[in-house]
Amino acid sequence: MTFSSPQPTPVSNAEGRNGNYPGKGIGEPVGVAVLGKGTVGTEVLRLLAEFSDNLAQRIGGPIEVRGVAVANVDKHVGSPEVAGIEVTDDARSLIAREDVDIVVELIGGIDYPRELVLEALKAGKSVVTANKALVAAHADELSEAANDAGVDLYYEAAVAAAIPVVGMLRRSLAGDQVQRISGIVNGTTNFILDAMATTGMSYADALAEATRLGYAEADPTADVEGHDAASKAAILASMGFHTRVTYDDVYCEGITKITAEDIDAARQSNQTIKLLAICERLVDASGETTGVNARVHPTLVPNEHPLATVDKSYNAIFVEAEAAGRLMFYGNGAGGAPTASAVLGDLVGAARNKIHGGRAPAENPYANYPVVAFGEVDTRYHINMTVNDRIGVLADLARTFSESGVSLSAVRQEESGDGAHLIVVTHAAQEKRLQGIVDKLAGHADVQAINSVIRLDA
Amino acid sequence: MTFSSPQPTPVSNAEGRNGNYPGKGIGEPVGVAVLGKGTVGTEVLRLLAEFSDNLAQRIGGPIEVRGVAVANVDKHVGSPEVAGIEVTDDARSLIAREDVDIVVELIGGIDYPRELVLEALKAGKSVVTANKALVAAHADELSEAANDAGVDLYYEAAVAAAIPVVGMLRRSLAGDQVQRISGIVNGTTNFILDAMATTGMSYADALAEATRLGYAEADPTADVEGHDAASKAAILASMGFHTRVTYDDVYCEGITKITAEDIDAARQSNQTIKLLAICERLVDASGETTGVNARVHPTLVPNEHPLATVDKSYNAIFVEAEAAGRLMFYGNGAGGAPTASAVLGDLVGAARNKIHGGRAPAENPYANYPVVAFGEVDTRYHINMTVNDRIGVLADLARTFSESGVSLSAVRQEESGDGAHLIVVTHAAQEKRLQGIVDKLAGHADVQAINSVIRLDA
Repeated sequence: MTFSSPQPTPVSNAEGRNGNYPGKGIGEPVGVAVLGKGTVGTEVLRLLAEFSDNLAQRIGGPIEVRGVAVANVDKHVGSPEVAGIEVTDDARSLIAREDVDIVVELIGGIDYPRELVLEALKAGKSVVTANKALVAAHADELSEAANDAGVDLYYEAAVAAAIPVVGMLRRSLAGDQVQRISGIVNGTTNFILDAMATTGMSYADALAEATRLGYAEADPTADVEGHDAASKAAILASMGFHTRVTYDDVYCEGITKITAEDIDAARQSNQTIKLLAICERLVDASGETTGVNARVHPTLVPNEHPLATVDKSYNAIFVEAEAAGRLMFYGNGAGGAPTASAVLGDLVGAARNKIHGGRAPAENPYANYPVVAFGEVDTRYHINMTVNDRIGVLADLARTFSESGVSLSAVRQEESGDGAHLIVVTHAAQEKRLQGIVDKLAGHADVQAINSVIRLDA
Repeated sequence: MTFSSPQPTPVSNAEGRNGNYPGKGIGEPVGVAVLGKGTVGTEVLRLLAEFSDNLAQRIGGPIEVRGVAVANVDKHVGSPEVAGIEVTDDARSLIAREDVDIVVELIGGIDYPRELVLEALKAGKSVVTANKALVAAHADELSEAANDAGVDLYYEAAVAAAIPVVGMLRRSLAGDQVQRISGIVNGTTNFILDAMATTGMSYADALAEATRLGYAEADPTADVEGHDAASKAAILASMGFHTRVTYDDVYCEGITKITAEDIDAARQSNQTIKLLAICERLVDASGETTGVNARVHPTLVPNEHPLATVDKSYNAIFVEAEAAGRLMFYGNGAGGAPTASAVLGDLVGAARNKIHGGRAPAENPYANYPVVAFGEVDTRYHINMTVNDRIGVLADLARTFSESGVSLSAVRQEESGDGAHLIVVTHAAQEKRLQGIVDKLAGHADVQAINSVIRLDA
């Protein structure tokens, strides 16, 4: 294979151009260390072999895997993806090898990969990671290390796998002002909610089905409680608003309380319940940005909205920007191959920079907007309660809203067995004020039960 | 404004790093020449002023517009977007200015912008263009000039405005193998087809409506005959398959022959007619790539397909890649602001590279697959004809297909006034063979008329 393609690329980096560290000449191999060999790591190694000639042409030199670090060497030695590749349990020594230019971190967890990634960056290696929890928790420290060394830190695969939303926020929308990002970024919960909506089954049954089919892990907590989506929301908000938003800044509510009745009520009102990650830039009356907020919660989405039609375990991200308008990106948000596709895209970028010089645009929190607590943000509530069926109860309960300055957009009362079902949809009001109303309603003598409170996509 | 953000960026390019031409230091202004001040140019200038502080932070130095070149200076002097900016009809001198680092070409047409862009690239200026016709016709020459100079040539805005499909193919999918791209890439024709489908109106009425609302130009030829979409197909195929595909390589058929009856028949069979740009990598039985093809034609899309739901003047691009699977991108594919968003995203990229070094991945046709003529490609036909209503006619006509080795997937016969309506849907077969059958049918004694031939998304 030769690199004298029809496209001459006269600018080599051989004299030393990747940050403060030596670059590579055209045609020189770029050395890669892969940390972790789970589903994604295995697929990355497989595709690196399958696509090697193509990748070399796109990069300007071949990728050479110097070694794969795993916890248990015996478990992996002899598997076809590591044929001819060193397998080690000493990740640190692998990273430190002089012929390793780029480290691909696919271990998962936070503390141990954090140490390894920092070590790699400090040694002048660019890093590609799929680790959303790590990035959402420690973006500051990792970015600083990457910037100090002048190397790349890529993490497209950390959000929605092969849907290139990180790259889009980093680059394509770099000349625009992002106003809002709302996305279905967790395939497991979307599968569960979609199964409930399609079949009428309960949450428990849908979770069992998701587990059986491999969409949910044995311990599904991170998915169903929204933690996974919250990490992604933090990354999207940070990128989109040029402001550091970490996992701890993200309000997070999962889907475990959603009932078949909620799903059914949503359908009757021509809506669908989705677990959304919502990142918004808050503006005052004059249009000035006052802060940003990121949150994850079940949300009623009108059926006409493109996000409502995203079924099964698919992901989709909806972005609103001042000039670009509304954009949507849709695809597989998880799985070995789609995640590996994103990792390889990043790896090609990092390797190109080793050879041709330059750095990818890093996370750049220059705007430094205040991160506004969820309680201060405007939301809308859909409240379903069972109330005593007596004359005047509706007026009485409506007063609870008006006394707090919250106006109602819809009220529906239905006969039920012992009392009446009352469904109230509010106009937009401060989240903490709405929460306060729900607390009052819960203590109201005429309210037998608050059956559900679900927010609308405000 | 200072550039000592929380993110130190130690690598400056002041010593000279953009190709063979001097780079800029951090905080130094990047000089831009804007060629053309139509809808997009005006919006670019407006947003450059509005976003200037943000862009400077993202780039590492401010953008300074050195001048705007227009055909008629008097027409533009005094308009607010050029306050304090030189307006000239001498584009060449503006490009040649030493303090111009990047040229933004928004003139349109082919020959004149081609000369200007080549001149700019040869003088070491990076170029951002929204000119799909120019890129689709002359990508080879332009890429070569950019590569020789080691500068950037960006054209995200040339395809589907702010939908970042060029960037996605260039970067996000750089580690994957694209198999197929099918997209609605022309807003005018999608508006017309959608209006016909929604209201039942004729093509002529829908075109008139599109013209009245500003979705169609006074001379709509480039849109309705598919030429605009064909340019975009050439660009998408070139990027996606790493193979030079030019406008002349793209088979092109517009929507002018689509009737209200065609639209109605599609609806009855649970399909929608869309003008698709289709780019495919052709593979043999062993999976080896044998070539690529790009084409534009009206296409029957099943209503369950995400592309079927793309309404009004929206664009959407559906990409299938080996590892990533199916991805879809959706948004405004035209208009001043969305196109300007894409131009500014490119401009930020090009300006970053002037300051921080490096080059964006250029079009790279290393794979150099044969571009296969449309006649050789497999397609599927939906043929609607009026035939004599006599015993045996169906068997007779069916033989025309079987004799050519084409099998049928569906046949529907309906009574009509003078004869019978016969609708035939074929299985996949070579385009030229299917075309040959249609020619035979047209000359068949029992065929009164071929009412329409529309391809299915094979």
